This record gives sequence, C-alpha cells and structure tokens, in this order.
Amino acid sequence: MIQVFKIGGNVVDNPVMLSDFLKDFAAIPGPKVLVHGGGVMASQMQKALGMTPVMIQGRRVTDQEALKVVTMVYAGWCNKRITAMLQANGCNAIGLTGADGNVICARRRPPVDIDGEMVDYGFVGDVKPEGVNTAFLNSLLAQGIVPVLCAINHDSQGNLLNTNADTIASSVAIALGEGTRLIYCFEKDGVLADKDDDSSVIPHISKDEFTRLKAEGVIADGMIPKLQNAFKAIEAGIDSVVIKHARNILNETGTILK
Amino acid sequence: MIQVFKIGGNVVDNPVMLSDFLKDFAAIPGPKVLVHGGGVMASQMQKALGMTPVMIQGRRVTDQEALKVVTMVYAGWCNKRITAMLQANGCNAIGLTGADGNVICARRRPPVDIDGEMVDYGFVGDVKPEGVNTAFLNSLLAQGIVPVLCAINHDSQGNLLNTNADTIASSVAIALGEGTRLIYCFEKDGVLADKDDDSSVIPHISKDEFTRLKAEGVIADGMIPKLQNAFKAIEAGIDSVVIKHARNILNETGTILK
Repeated sequence: MIQVFKIGGNVVDNPVMLSDFLKDFAAIPGPKVLVHGGGVMASQMQKALGMTPVMIQGRRVTDQEALKVVTMVYAGWCNKRITAMLQANGCNAIGLTGADGNVICARRRPPVDIDGEMVDYGFVGDVKPEGVNTAFLNSLLAQGIVPVLCAINHDSQGNLLNTNADTIASSVAIALGEGTRLIYCFEKDGVLADKDDDSSVIPHISKDEFTRLKAEGVIADGMIPKLQNAFKAIEAGIDSVVIKHARNILNETGTILK
Repeated sequence: MIQVFKIGGNVVDNPVMLSDFLKDFAAIPGPKVLVHGGGVMASQMQKALGMTPVMIQGRRVTDQEALKVVTMVYAGWCNKRITAMLQANGCNAIGLTGADGNVICARRRPPVDIDGEMVDYGFVGDVKPEGVNTAFLNSLLAQGIVPVLCAINHDSQGNLLNTNADTIASSVAIALGEGTRLIYCFEKDGVLADKDDDSSVIPHISKDEFTRLKAEGVIADGMIPKLQNAFKAIEAGIDSVVIKHARNILNETGTILK
C-alpha cells in the first residue's frame, strides 16, 4: 500500500512538531509520499520584503513578485529543509516541485467570479489526477526514494504556479490509484464531534454520515472542503483517507473516511 | 559521452542570456547535467531583507539567516525557474540540491586561517567526487531525465550547506568518470591571450601550457582557480574541459583543455 501524507503550514512552521513528525514519517515502512504546505512563512517573507499578502477566500493572489516569494519559501527553504531532515533520519527523500521530472502539470486558473466580481488569482494553478506523472513517481518509489512535494507546480509553458497542497495530495493519491491511502495530518486528533473537546474524535465516517453530520452542523467551516476532497478521492478509487494529528502517524488513531 | 555544463550568476541573472542558453541546452542530444550558480541575486535578497552580505576571498560567510536566503534563491527561485523553462523547451529537467535523493553529500568547512585570522564560513561545504551519488545520477540519465544542480548541498546530518558551483560541476564530472566532458559557460568567448581582445581566444591549452601562461601572467586572477580545477578534473580521468561563452554551446568554439 502506498501512503500519501499531507502536512499543512501549522506543522511546517512549528520546528518541534515538524522535527517529531519527520522522525516518525522516516520510520514508516513501505512506499510513501509527503506533500507539504508552508503558508504562514510565505506571508511573513512577503511582509519582510515590503509586500502586502492578498488572500481571497483563503487563496493567495499570486502576482509575479508573490510567485517569487512562494517559490523561494515553499520550494526553497521549506522543501529543502524537510528533505535534508529526512535524509538525516535515514529516509532517502527527494524534494520536488511539479516542474521537476514533470511530476505534476497544473493548469493556470482563469479569472473566477466571486460575489459578482471577477478575480484573477494570477500565477495560481489547479491540479488534476491526469496531470500527475505516475510513471516517474512509481520509478522513484521502486528505488526506495520518497517524493516530497511542495505546492509549486508548472504549466509546461515555462510558468511556475502556486497550487493548493490538499488538492495536490488528493490528486497524487487518486493518480497512484487503488490501494493508496491518503493521510491528512494537522493539529487536531481527527474530525471532532464537539470542536471544543479534543477527545470527541469520530473514528469512522462514511459518505452518508458526512452528509448527515454536515446537515447537523457538526462538520463545518474549513473541514467541509477537506472532507469533500477526501470523499472525491475515495469515489475515484483510493483505499481510504485518514485525518489525524501530525504526532500520531505511527498510531492507529484519527478519523478514517471510507 | 555525458556532458556537464556549468553556468554562473552572470548568466542566471540575465533573463535574455538565460533564456537563450536554456533553449540551446535543451537542444543538445545525449545525457547531460546542468550546474548553476546565482550569486548576485542572493546578495540582492539579503540586502532587501536588511542583511549585509559578507564575502571573504570571494566566498559568502553563511550564517543561519544567510543560509535561508541562499537556499531560497538558489534552490527555490533560480533552480525551479530554470527547470520550468527547460520543461517548456521539451527537456525533462529535474532540479536538485544535494539533499534530494542524497545526490551530493558535502562536508562542512572547518574554520580556515586567512592572513593569520581564523575565519568560520558558517554553513559552507566542500564537495568531493566521493560525495556524488552516481548511481542515482545515472538512473536519472538512463530515463532521459536531466539533473539541474544548484549550489546547495547537505551533510547527511540534517544541515544544508552553501557550496561552490564550479567545484560541484568538476566533482560531478569526475564522479561520472571517463568520457565525461565538463563545459564551463560564462560571458567571455574562452580563455583570452589578451583580456581586452575578445577575439584572442586560445583554442587549446595543455597542462604545461597552463603553467607557462600562468608564469607569463597571461592567465591571471579568477581564471587561475577555474583552470586549476579543470586540470584536476582532467587528471582525475575525465575526457576534457571546455571554457566558452554561454551563447556558444551549440558551436565548436571556446578553449579546450586536455
């Protein structure tokens, strides 16, 4: 079974949590892929360079200057530090953007209508499973090499594009196909029945239960697109999706979606 | 024959020269590797972030903050832009630091005595041919994938290290062994007999001629370590070293050292 792990900016930005996570990740046997975000650091770097980060509906408007910053931060500092730390833990990692080995080709997002206004996100791309180069990923996995993907991809026309790490993770899992497990790691123990009670993790959620929990308002806000994404991946044929705390990847905890 | 090309910061920093070079590089048949610098842009980024670049004998003193900047600039922006541009030219490039696939392991440089003063360069590494993972490089080349190496490597202990791109290029060429050609591309037509006359390119230089030209003062300054490095690579068994203008890689011009 191939396991695709995704960690968000909250893990990447926390040196202790990141170091602990990478130690555990290195210890997981079998073929695996890591996808990482790194959002907070990119905004900090934009501000340090006198730019003003512009976010619309949680996505960064990425002009040429912002693209330079996110590429430097995601593909440069975050991706290479993670790769070097994994190497130090005995895990033969390789840090990649989509341009590297043409591993992921994305499509630049056309301007979108948001509340009646056309928004051009700039150098922002959308990734689909068809854009994932599984031949190259499988060749790396067969050599025992662990791909570490950041949220920068390309359009095959020479442009780098800022893309969403959650979507990269689900697209890669779907492309790798049957028997692949997708594990979203974050700073909560799983999907909670009561968002203020960390011990209220729901161990299993089916598609029907998701519909019911959403209607009841138990699952709300940012968790909705995450779970929609997850069920789309399951419908596309992957084995399962697990949502769990980044500190628990060696334990059978969290919420399993199946 | 494997060809290892090296371009310096002067090419990387010049958008037109870089774009023309990459178009030509993409058109070169057979197995090839690209090694690139990117020095000027790193100093600009340090200054934009309120840091003061410190260079001693042409090498950057690299503390933790400077390491972050050079990693962002070399491994992030420069490396990924070059890789995406090569992909757009139909060349299946993969951008790598030494940490990626453990392709180059460097050794942190201990403090050195410079004019009676001990200088600690910080996170600066030295690369040797023994540190080059030829199995992985050959596996990429066999798949028709073109490695694009930047000047960031790792020490296998989790530290990224800033290293010299010329030395990376010669170490990779030596490690790839017999029949490898090393091509240093820069903004002059070759080694000049008269530094003020661009048409005075010396077409061939042997080791003995190098010794003589150095004694006569024809070869001076920064060209001396470049050529010393080149002859070291030839003595270690590679086919030849060529020094030429970045715009001439499709032509049989420049200075051949053999």
